[in-house]
Amino acid sequence: MPKPTAHFRCFRGCAGAWPLTQAIYRCPTCDGLLEVAHDRAALAQTSADEWRARFDARWSPTAREIPMPSGVWSKREWVAPEVPDDCIVSTGEGMTALYPAKLLAKQSGIRELYVKQCGTTHTGSFKDLGMTVLVSVVNQAVRQGSLKVRAIACASTGDTSAALAAYGAAAGLPVVVLLPRGMVSVGQLVQPLAHGARVLALDTDFDGCMRIVRELAARGLVYLANSMNPLRIEGQKTVAIEIAQQLGWQAPDWVVIPSGNLGNAAALYAGFAMARDLGLVDRLPRLCVAQAANADPMYRAFMKGQTEVTPVVAKATQASAIRIGNPVSAPRAMAALKAMNGVVEEATEQELADACAKADRTGLYACPHTGVGLACAMKLRARGVIAESERVVVVSTASALKFTEFKLGYHEKKLPEVDSTLANEPIALPADVETVVQHLPP
Amino acid sequence: MPKPTAHFRCFRGCAGAWPLTQAIYRCPTCDGLLEVAHDRAALAQTSADEWRARFDARWSPTAREIPMPSGVWSKREWVAPEVPDDCIVSTGEGMTALYPAKLLAKQSGIRELYVKQCGTTHTGSFKDLGMTVLVSVVNQAVRQGSLKVRAIACASTGDTSAALAAYGAAAGLPVVVLLPRGMVSVGQLVQPLAHGARVLALDTDFDGCMRIVRELAARGLVYLANSMNPLRIEGQKTVAIEIAQQLGWQAPDWVVIPSGNLGNAAALYAGFAMARDLGLVDRLPRLCVAQAANADPMYRAFMKGQTEVTPVVAKATQASAIRIGNPVSAPRAMAALKAMNGVVEEATEQELADACAKADRTGLYACPHTGVGLACAMKLRARGVIAESERVVVVSTASALKFTEFKLGYHEKKLPEVDSTLANEPIALPADVETVVQHLPP
Repeated sequence: MPKPTAHFRCFRGCAGAWPLTQAIYRCPTCDGLLEVAHDRAALAQTSADEWRARFDARWSPTAREIPMPSGVWSKREWVAPEVPDDCIVSTGEGMTALYPAKLLAKQSGIRELYVKQCGTTHTGSFKDLGMTVLVSVVNQAVRQGSLKVRAIACASTGDTSAALAAYGAAAGLPVVVLLPRGMVSVGQLVQPLAHGARVLALDTDFDGCMRIVRELAARGLVYLANSMNPLRIEGQKTVAIEIAQQLGWQAPDWVVIPSGNLGNAAALYAGFAMARDLGLVDRLPRLCVAQAANADPMYRAFMKGQTEVTPVVAKATQASAIRIGNPVSAPRAMAALKAMNGVVEEATEQELADACAKADRTGLYACPHTGVGLACAMKLRARGVIAESERVVVVSTASALKFTEFKLGYHEKKLPEVDSTLANEPIALPADVETVVQHLPP
Repeated sequence: MPKPTAHFRCFRGCAGAWPLTQAIYRCPTCDGLLEVAHDRAALAQTSADEWRARFDARWSPTAREIPMPSGVWSKREWVAPEVPDDCIVSTGEGMTALYPAKLLAKQSGIRELYVKQCGTTHTGSFKDLGMTVLVSVVNQAVRQGSLKVRAIACASTGDTSAALAAYGAAAGLPVVVLLPRGMVSVGQLVQPLAHGARVLALDTDFDGCMRIVRELAARGLVYLANSMNPLRIEGQKTVAIEIAQQLGWQAPDWVVIPSGNLGNAAALYAGFAMARDLGLVDRLPRLCVAQAANADPMYRAFMKGQTEVTPVVAKATQASAIRIGNPVSAPRAMAALKAMNGVVEEATEQELADACAKADRTGLYACPHTGVGLACAMKLRARGVIAESERVVVVSTASALKFTEFKLGYHEKKLPEVDSTLANEPIALPADVETVVQHLPP
């Protein structure tokens, strides 16, 4: 087959095409978002059966046609087809479990409920999937001499900076993280610090950091790794392909994803659409974008039937990574909702905390964002939007090991806006066998 | 082929055989450890090539011959061959990345250095591997009516209780955790609490908790899940089989494992020995048992040429999970050392912290125990025990996301006994582009 290629183009359709190794982040004509366009004709010369067989064969303990086993690079022709082997920076991301949540399904009246465990990964969040692509492409551009920057940079207070710093360190490329001074705990910074990133704490808010990092990128001093960069979506879309693959190349009926900046919702659409267009699955699932009620601009737009998102001031939520009032990828997510017959649902602090507590008691260990996703799935089921017979996948976006304070707060009954009805506390007893016997379960 | 079977027998060779579903933890004759014996003749009727092909085929997005993809249950005939599908309690454990630590290898003068990422898993530690077997066998025994207990129980302050609570919750089986009151932070308890385990905090020390849980087990009130239970070794030994599989069915030259209670060292031997005996690999790797210098009874015995371990009082170490002065599985580990031409090495607090900091700067994110393993590998290389040309695998036993305090302590220069030479701290700056430019990397 002809070697597949890909390039940047304007998401809204303005003219122009740019190589993936070029440092370009917005359409020069309309200043809108970019997307990655693949040479579908070249990809279509390989049959659906051949793609399925190839992707299945690469899900393997020993990598074939890829430098190391990876959920992202096992789909390399669909992701970033022109990155040479020796430029790939991988931690073995992806290939996470599709956990059949049988007890929780029964409790929720859903026949089949799966949790896609994207947080069980190198840096503990789904951001690894996009960052392996971004850092590998930068690595390629730097080695080819087409890109000269002093660092890869992002404005971030959480998982994005952790993933960028880890992949940058693995590549030996310098990383700079900008964040608002005093608004982020050192605990949230420990991953980028440990990975040796240069962490600059600025006297401004998050938007101020974003303005400065964009200015540095515009001057060509840094390469911009924030989520407007469409390379990250190319990696994240492999979640959709993996879900279909893990279901034996079938789309589920529903996929529910907690989303703030909305890039991951757009990525799910990109992945499922490509799998359908190339014949690997026969349809798209329905999409539920799950938002925290305290940061719900997409939900508001959806309820009003609007096609554009009006920014809101996001309030504090335990689901801190989706506390976003003005989502960068809103236009992308609107297109996804439309194509996937999607809905937007929201979960209050009480609902997300209850969903986590219920899930944890069935053996899951849900981060607050996953709680938002699970709560929204349960609400849609209770309202009959999701039918009893449907197969539902909730995407878990981060490891709950990053959210010990949230778990403790719940079980110590200290979370704001939350009544901890499922709290579990230690029972203090004397060290006496007979007393302990009396406190065993019946 | 005849259906493979397995049973408990005395590790020292006393007469007797008991089914895996029986609640028996010590040899009734000598009170020593038990082990699981497999019907090697039945297993040997399948050729090495067939086993390799079968294990490779099961490393797959869609489970074949197993209820769901799992590193442990994909080797089910070698692990617990008589557990029916519907009794298996799995979270998709195992199949973790064998990360090629290229930058760290170069810095350490080792040609090939891999980190087996056992912490990138459901509950964040390698304990999942053993616990899926133990809870599945209990589930089988309970369903068959051969076991009636009020709970599965362990005395534990950390990863064991987290894994037991998660798998118990997934099975719908009650779990009890005993721990010394006031000696464990609530943060360490949050996983078992979230999973709904009954956590009993007793007015005694860890040994006192252990005595009580053993008494409860002796009375038949609880099933004992602590590491003297050899079912856990059967699950953990799949780490060895996976490492060989990920290297294309070759044993590495060295495998380095941080170890306190020494069950995991014994498990590595069990796995590699079985793979060699059945022809899947042609030799055993050499073993390095890596201990914290503050809790090093095995190291002391090794240096003195003793074949028995004399208990020590373990001092505080950042590698808290291997802070064990009187290791339960010492006899098992001694046999492993002998058979694998093994060595014991130790790492001080400074050495383990430095190893973590170096590793993190190359993209890894190492927990303190993994730091012990990495430090010992580097020391053996520096002394020439490990040759430059050798292929070394260090087993990472837990997710560093569980050790935020350790990472913070290092980078804030607050760890006892440690000089934080690689500390990285945020740089506070005004929100001014030109100032930020001056602080970019060169």
